[in-house]
Amino acid sequence: MGGNGVVDTTGRRVVPADALRALTSDVFAAVGLTREDADLMGASLTDADLRGVHTHGTRWAIRYARSLQSGGNTTPHLEVVRDDGPIAVVDGGARLGHIVSTKAMRLAIEKAKQHGTGTVTVKNSSHCGAMAYYTNMAADAGCIGFATSTAGILMAPTGGKDKLIGVNPVSWGFPTKRGWNVDLDMAPSVVAGSKIDMAIVRGEKIPFGWALDRDGNPTDDPKAGMEGLALPLGGPKGYGLAVVLDILGGVLSGGRFGKGLGMQGGSQFFQAINIEHFLPMADFLVRMEQLIDQIKGSALAPGSPGVFLPGEIEHMNKQTRVKDGILMEETTLHDLETIATELGLPHRPSTWK
Amino acid sequence: MGGNGVVDTTGRRVVPADALRALTSDVFAAVGLTREDADLMGASLTDADLRGVHTHGTRWAIRYARSLQSGGNTTPHLEVVRDDGPIAVVDGGARLGHIVSTKAMRLAIEKAKQHGTGTVTVKNSSHCGAMAYYTNMAADAGCIGFATSTAGILMAPTGGKDKLIGVNPVSWGFPTKRGWNVDLDMAPSVVAGSKIDMAIVRGEKIPFGWALDRDGNPTDDPKAGMEGLALPLGGPKGYGLAVVLDILGGVLSGGRFGKGLGMQGGSQFFQAINIEHFLPMADFLVRMEQLIDQIKGSALAPGSPGVFLPGEIEHMNKQTRVKDGILMEETTLHDLETIATELGLPHRPSTWK
Repeated sequence: MGGNGVVDTTGRRVVPADALRALTSDVFAAVGLTREDADLMGASLTDADLRGVHTHGTRWAIRYARSLQSGGNTTPHLEVVRDDGPIAVVDGGARLGHIVSTKAMRLAIEKAKQHGTGTVTVKNSSHCGAMAYYTNMAADAGCIGFATSTAGILMAPTGGKDKLIGVNPVSWGFPTKRGWNVDLDMAPSVVAGSKIDMAIVRGEKIPFGWALDRDGNPTDDPKAGMEGLALPLGGPKGYGLAVVLDILGGVLSGGRFGKGLGMQGGSQFFQAINIEHFLPMADFLVRMEQLIDQIKGSALAPGSPGVFLPGEIEHMNKQTRVKDGILMEETTLHDLETIATELGLPHRPSTWK
Repeated sequence: MGGNGVVDTTGRRVVPADALRALTSDVFAAVGLTREDADLMGASLTDADLRGVHTHGTRWAIRYARSLQSGGNTTPHLEVVRDDGPIAVVDGGARLGHIVSTKAMRLAIEKAKQHGTGTVTVKNSSHCGAMAYYTNMAADAGCIGFATSTAGILMAPTGGKDKLIGVNPVSWGFPTKRGWNVDLDMAPSVVAGSKIDMAIVRGEKIPFGWALDRDGNPTDDPKAGMEGLALPLGGPKGYGLAVVLDILGGVLSGGRFGKGLGMQGGSQFFQAINIEHFLPMADFLVRMEQLIDQIKGSALAPGSPGVFLPGEIEHMNKQTRVKDGILMEETTLHDLETIATELGLPHRPSTWK
């Protein structure tokens, strides 16, 4: 361990973003993905680390790579099983969710450019990482992006105590003139399940109010919380939102929904809305500036570090980390180094520079 | 006051739903709406009372009727300023929001039946009541409905203390085989602004956690809360969701957005997704049954009255009230009786039967 990166005392090390992306991409190419799909995996996982969303970053690479080594589908084809004007239904063919989802959102954007909107459901996919990646794609293309996915079952319905409700993420992205998109990406729980999972990895406590243990008592132990129940955002509203997202992603796609209902795998829903179909892009961008200026012009609450739009802090994280490198968990780097060595890749700890 | 309805001790009286709807409709017809538009107002406002959502019910009728008496636009035309395949842009012409929104959602449903999805933005509209009314229309037509609107500015951005963020409502509706739709309708605040408003009308306290007073302190006084700040659902998530909905409803439509930005009036966004374009309706409905059965099959939490899907309690309210009448505020009934008398309508308290 150690290499030539900067090591902190909490088991983390700073590595250059380019090196992390290149190594991740190369791992995926070495286990059978096309170069293009491997680069897509490297880009999307590293993007999450750059934005500070490590819960959805390269720490997943080894699991995904192992699944491909165990016979996962590495073919790059996007199976569009229904294609009808502004809508399409995609069968992910049990491929990696990131690849299926990126191509599904590309299709939604293409359709939006032609028809005004594009709506694509995805079944038989898998975990697809941070939804913001896809809604930022749409925003970068001059569209409003919307994305949701079925996710881990960690909550109970309001009034019930059985773990039946997914912490299904939802994201919307909107272009601006500022070099970053307004982009909201959230789970309908108090926090995303992966934040509880991350606390387990880091050996940290979680705040009371995130989860209940098996017996329904408040807990600050992330393991007890994962075994118990994550709490929905605002009680019935978060529960209701989770059900809505399950129907959009899961029920409508024909894929997995609820707790193990329908076919196996992950289900997603992507939508792009082409802004120019509704009003001139220049007008939209001026209006976004007015809204952002108004919100950021707010007097600060006592002790506040500032007022930020959704996605703005993630953008600031990215700017800093592109320049200074990313403070990564040693466990993630160790996993990547291990599989790189196994695969005979030239990357070694000493090359993290 | 009194009439032949059942009077309770809290200033409320039970009236038959049909009589409430008929009187409300007749008031609107008498102030200049076409019979069809007047009936639409009666139906949508009474529907909110039937579902127990009195905050968006007939208590608004007198304000709307007075605005029409003061020269409001009573013409029934829907001004579609852009119509392009699955999308349309509507100018509400400063008409009543309920009428514009009902017609805009009808247009979205028509487009969904033809193209798979229909997306309609609305500018220059006004307050349009409960968003569930529109998403239930879509669900009743075999579509998934989505609706949002700009609303009162009652929240501060996370980190700020200025009142700049709207409690913009959002709703999704989905058909089922149960005689009711799964329908979520929520504000991105801990509670809708109209619930705080309703507590003022009823002279009730509000729970701590709903709002802050002018000085930023927690309050249980609804007047202090309306003068101060409503709290966003789950802090930054509710703030972020409110911004997203402001962009969808306000920025994209070309109408009012933010705090008094853009043109005057209300802005809305309606979308319908035709289920049959994605999978056979029979399959969708079977999957919805599986999901609903699974969720309602949950063991109950201690003291729980049951597990309900979004929209289910509102449906149960409606069933009971269609049969037994609606317990209405005397203030609302008094307003309706007053304007009915002014307009020379045959309705009188003695005819509430």
